[in-house]
Amino acid sequence: ECVLVLNCGSSSLKWSIFDTARPQNDAHGQIERIGASGTRLVQHGPRCEVNRKLPLGGHPEAFAAMMEVLLDRGFGVISELSSITVVGHRVVHGGERFTGPTIIDGHVLEELDKLATLAPLHNPVNVAGIREALRLFPAVPQVAVFDTAFHATLPAHAFLYGLPSRYYETESIRRYGFHGSSHGHVVLAAAHFLKKHPRELKIVSCHLGSGASLCAIDHGRSVDTTMGFTPAEGLVMGTRCGDIDSGVLLHLQRGGLDAAQLDRLLNKESGLLGLSGISGDMREIEAAADLGDARALIAFKVFCYRVRKGIGALVAALGGIDVLVFTAGIGQGSAGVRGAAVQGLQCMGIHLDETRNRAATGKEVDRISTDSSAVQILVLPTDEERMIARESLKGLSRDYLVRASEAC
Amino acid sequence: ECVLVLNCGSSSLKWSIFDTARPQNDAHGQIERIGASGTRLVQHGPRCEVNRKLPLGGHPEAFAAMMEVLLDRGFGVISELSSITVVGHRVVHGGERFTGPTIIDGHVLEELDKLATLAPLHNPVNVAGIREALRLFPAVPQVAVFDTAFHATLPAHAFLYGLPSRYYETESIRRYGFHGSSHGHVVLAAAHFLKKHPRELKIVSCHLGSGASLCAIDHGRSVDTTMGFTPAEGLVMGTRCGDIDSGVLLHLQRGGLDAAQLDRLLNKESGLLGLSGISGDMREIEAAADLGDARALIAFKVFCYRVRKGIGALVAALGGIDVLVFTAGIGQGSAGVRGAAVQGLQCMGIHLDETRNRAATGKEVDRISTDSSAVQILVLPTDEERMIARESLKGLSRDYLVRASEAC
Ligand SMILES: Nc1ncnc2c1ncn2[C@@H]1O[C@H](COP(=O)(O)OP(=O)(O)O)[C@@H](O)[C@H]1O
Ligand SMILES: Nc1ncnc2c1ncn2[C@@H]1O[C@H](COP(=O)(O)OP(=O)(O)O)[C@@H](O)[C@H]1O
Repeated sequence: ECVLVLNCGSSSLKWSIFDTARPQNDAHGQIERIGASGTRLVQHGPRCEVNRKLPLGGHPEAFAAMMEVLLDRGFGVISELSSITVVGHRVVHGGERFTGPTIIDGHVLEELDKLATLAPLHNPVNVAGIREALRLFPAVPQVAVFDTAFHATLPAHAFLYGLPSRYYETESIRRYGFHGSSHGHVVLAAAHFLKKHPRELKIVSCHLGSGASLCAIDHGRSVDTTMGFTPAEGLVMGTRCGDIDSGVLLHLQRGGLDAAQLDRLLNKESGLLGLSGISGDMREIEAAADLGDARALIAFKVFCYRVRKGIGALVAALGGIDVLVFTAGIGQGSAGVRGAAVQGLQCMGIHLDETRNRAATGKEVDRISTDSSAVQILVLPTDEERMIARESLKGLSRDYLVRASEAC
Repeated sequence: ECVLVLNCGSSSLKWSIFDTARPQNDAHGQIERIGASGTRLVQHGPRCEVNRKLPLGGHPEAFAAMMEVLLDRGFGVISELSSITVVGHRVVHGGERFTGPTIIDGHVLEELDKLATLAPLHNPVNVAGIREALRLFPAVPQVAVFDTAFHATLPAHAFLYGLPSRYYETESIRRYGFHGSSHGHVVLAAAHFLKKHPRELKIVSCHLGSGASLCAIDHGRSVDTTMGFTPAEGLVMGTRCGDIDSGVLLHLQRGGLDAAQLDRLLNKESGLLGLSGISGDMREIEAAADLGDARALIAFKVFCYRVRKGIGALVAALGGIDVLVFTAGIGQGSAGVRGAAVQGLQCMGIHLDETRNRAATGKEVDRISTDSSAVQILVLPTDEERMIARESLKGLSRDYLVRASEAC
């Protein structure tokens, strides 16, 4: 099979090619700043890298540019359109309706449209990407893979907010959780590395990227996670505030902020960026803190402290864990964050080996716990796209399990 | 000294008398439903109980009724107005300005008025009570004791939200925490019972009443707590929602709810009441769940699960604990809640003895952990009023420390 994985955002389009017969052919690329000036396409292919400016245009133009570089005679990845045998789409919100990879047809598209009320910023643009792909690949099976699906196994006591029950029963307001493909990948990769079956492991997975969430995993199933109804809840993130007293929001609402302004404040101007006044990028925060910038240091501390409390909460939820995993940009890249996040957690059997921690590259699976630590601490590279490809094949019921265990 | 402790709420007035020379004279009473029909006064005095209906009236009438029963020749508690030597006032919000008990003068009253923006529902009525008491006891020193003051020791990484820094720096938006008198009492009572100095103990204190909060205490100082800028954050409570994704609030705001409606929803219609559809009273929830009511059972589970995760988070914050304390109505009264809240926490050294748990009365200090448990689990009666009396004397610098250790 040759799977094209698409992740269509409001101003970006990302794609990956996974060729199960020729893995050396794998490629991925993205177009950023769609609809704005300075649109740029980058593709890392088997033979070379493409990096070019694009003229101003919308998503259709972006899709056309992607197809052009994919099919290019010189540096292209596939020889013809029909080489693609499956298209897998990342869709942010599956609501309660979609709890696994789903083959897309007219009925599913209608249901996806309805989910726009739950994720107005994400789903409509994901669905627009699906429609574009259906136009380009009318004969190829297409599968929707949902960020929320991995968390469909949350028990009610973990997914309910303390609201009147009708808000869940009639308005579907509940914790959904996101980053499902990443946390799902963590399970497979950790189990593979430790030579265990997922059902033998209790895992806390820390996906720390520009968005960040923790997930409690028991028997390979998500039982709790820090993101909620939207990706705004939980940890402090690059530009997102994370957990905040509802009373603060009411205070700001009374002060005159409308929903759009609050949304902007909480999701685009907060987090590491807001606390530091410098950047939402952890590398810049750490660099500034190292140079003595007090706000950058406090942003770093708040970020790590929240991760630490979140780990404690999920260890309590699981009744103890076997594995603690760090993944995504910050999780793989920052030994400083990992060290601060597990500080004091010896009382839960979590013992970091600081030398191993400093030595971990984040490019492969590394164990960074001490030999005697009851809990294994791992750093592992996230691979959401491969997971989406895998799930897409699973959606098509094409010998998923065999491949999953091989590919991991 | 004879301390009158006053707690003036929007529709209630509570008072206690602590006579340091004659503790057998202690009394407490309250008037409920002020300003509504069915106003009722209850007082438990050294000699008898008073329980009477009052005519419709406002706070001045309530104060007059209180004075009348306190001074009554037959069942009264004090012989004359001048028996009262100190008046201590519970004030909900001290902001960053008031970090300890504060003798009230004109300047302090002005500052308290300014804090109304931080706690519009609570502070103005607390201050109205102070003004009334100043009129009644013009010659007696009066002290304000703040729910927030015990948490003045929170480090910045625990009190900052992930908002842009100007929200803290110019608008004082941060975690403050509440129930300070209760958590403060827990420290003294637990240390006394365990024959330790507070500085030797790391404690997680669980105040579970109709409002509920957890507090992490190190060296006798609060280092984190679940309530925040307002008492709305953290645990699920009787009628409060507790932690909720800010995205849910934006969703509801977009759906047309204004700040007053959201406030009502989150603070009066949610929590145990909202989830169960039955009651905000844990006794009724447990009774209904025992009879098989599914919503009551889920309300119970959500409540306990949140406590459990909160304990885990604070154990992580403290890097392990020595003592876990349950107090207030639910904490003292419900063995079921305590059992569910510590389920799975053996991995943190917390081992409950279920027989001791069932046997604890909540009327005195009881140890409910197993003999081999690394963490001592205690049930102890809250005594916020006594703590306010103690703090009031401390505010007056009248040999506080001697009394505190004696009275405990
Ligand atoms: N070596 C590193 N040290 C610290 N932080 C890093 C490092 N590398 C990447 N990051 C952080 O990871 C973030 C991006 O995470 P990533 O998982 O790649 O992104 P996304 O969540 O957008 O998919 C960046 O904003 C940056 O803060
Ligand atoms: N025996 C009991 N079992 C369970 N819950 C109890 C018990 N006694 C009191 N409660 C709960 O405690 C709550 C009141 O707690 P309390 O600390 O007295 O009140 P407040 O927080 O209003 O000061 C009640 O709403 C009730 O739910």
